Amino acid sequence: MKKLKIPEATVERLSVYSRFLAQADRKGIVTISSGEIAEGVGVSPAQVRKDLAYFGEFGTRGVGYNVKDLYWHIIKILGLNTTWPIVIIGAGNLGTALSMYGGFRERGFKVVGIFDNAPHKIGYRLNGIEIYPIDRLAEIIEREKAQIAIIAVPAEHAQEVADMLAKTSIRAILNFAPRVLTVPEHIELRNVDLSVHLEILTFNLGFRRTARAVGVLR
Amino acid sequence: MKKLKIPEATVERLSVYSRFLAQADRKGIVTISSGEIAEGVGVSPAQVRKDLAYFGEFGTRGVGYNVKDLYWHIIKILGLNTTWPIVIIGAGNLGTALSMYGGFRERGFKVVGIFDNAPHKIGYRLNGIEIYPIDRLAEIIEREKAQIAIIAVPAEHAQEVADMLAKTSIRAILNFAPRVLTVPEHIELRNVDLSVHLEILTFNLGFRRTARAVGVLR
Repeated sequence: MKKLKIPEATVERLSVYSRFLAQADRKGIVTISSGEIAEGVGVSPAQVRKDLAYFGEFGTRGVGYNVKDLYWHIIKILGLNTTWPIVIIGAGNLGTALSMYGGFRERGFKVVGIFDNAPHKIGYRLNGIEIYPIDRLAEIIEREKAQIAIIAVPAEHAQEVADMLAKTSIRAILNFAPRVLTVPEHIELRNVDLSVHLEILTFNLGFRRTARAVGVLR
Repeated sequence: MKKLKIPEATVERLSVYSRFLAQADRKGIVTISSGEIAEGVGVSPAQVRKDLAYFGEFGTRGVGYNVKDLYWHIIKILGLNTTWPIVIIGAGNLGTALSMYGGFRERGFKVVGIFDNAPHKIGYRLNGIEIYPIDRLAEIIEREKAQIAIIAVPAEHAQEVADMLAKTSIRAILNFAPRVLTVPEHIELRNVDLSVHLEILTFNLGFRRTARAVGVLR
């Protein structure tokens, strides 16, 4: 069997398509073309078709896609047709902000516990979610069947937390600390670098400036 | 003149390459091949060469790239060979976390002001950065020559803030509020959806499970 390699950019775009389809569905739209999806999210129609083609045949030539069907197909592909209990390690500003982030709940992610080592924070609730001491990590992860953990501790403690998580039943880690982490192979690790978003903006500003200077853009 | 279209994924990878090159440089490595860069960051060597080829000829066939030269080339392409003053709107948990985010400073982004409308926050300093009332937005942006603003307010106020920013000299907006915003065409807008990162993880977990079931992965 051929090993299928799905580009990460495709997965990111599927996420964007599904949000756009949910919007279209709320507006009562029943059928949609790849051109309409493309225009709505700002990519080429060929890109939309190519992204969807990774996962088999959708839609009818000349008619387009059924909005609800395509939405649910994508949600299933992304693994979002279920609720994912997640834990957050670090009850500082970032951990607190993430525990209240509405975007998680909307997509089926439910924060079931926050962990910290500051005694004065333990036992309190953030947004209804209990703050546990870090030494109860394995126990709570097991009890709540959490498979994903978010690391939101200072950079110098991030590897230590990753090592603790590696001894639990956690299967995936989203790391917000600006530090390269090492985890066992059975754990999926993803690093979020928030400055990349700013760098895409500065690239675009610079590119626009250059393009304007040479007369490509006004 | 042909209009050059650089894929956003390429810009994101350039950012990753530059971090890897900085690391290599600190280790005293002078020359590096596309294969070594590729292995270090987890993409194919062909992808590295393709990404760099957008910006002209780098490196010498059979010898590779000079680490320092390539690093500085990429930094210039990304527009990071200068300091970018930025402002943050919203001194809540997310705004506070962002104002302390070490990753920004490392890449030349300097937070020069935070804005909020809560009277008890005004005048205080977060991490040495003053919190200003929102009605001083245009004045401070002008004074500090900030070109980039980060929106970190609750979703229901995000458009209002974007409208205020559109009347200032700001040129780019990074929006963390989970809300689709409308801005004039001269402003670059980028939305950060933090749940996308979790969705890439759930996709990977699901894909691994399937791949394991059909015997592609152990």
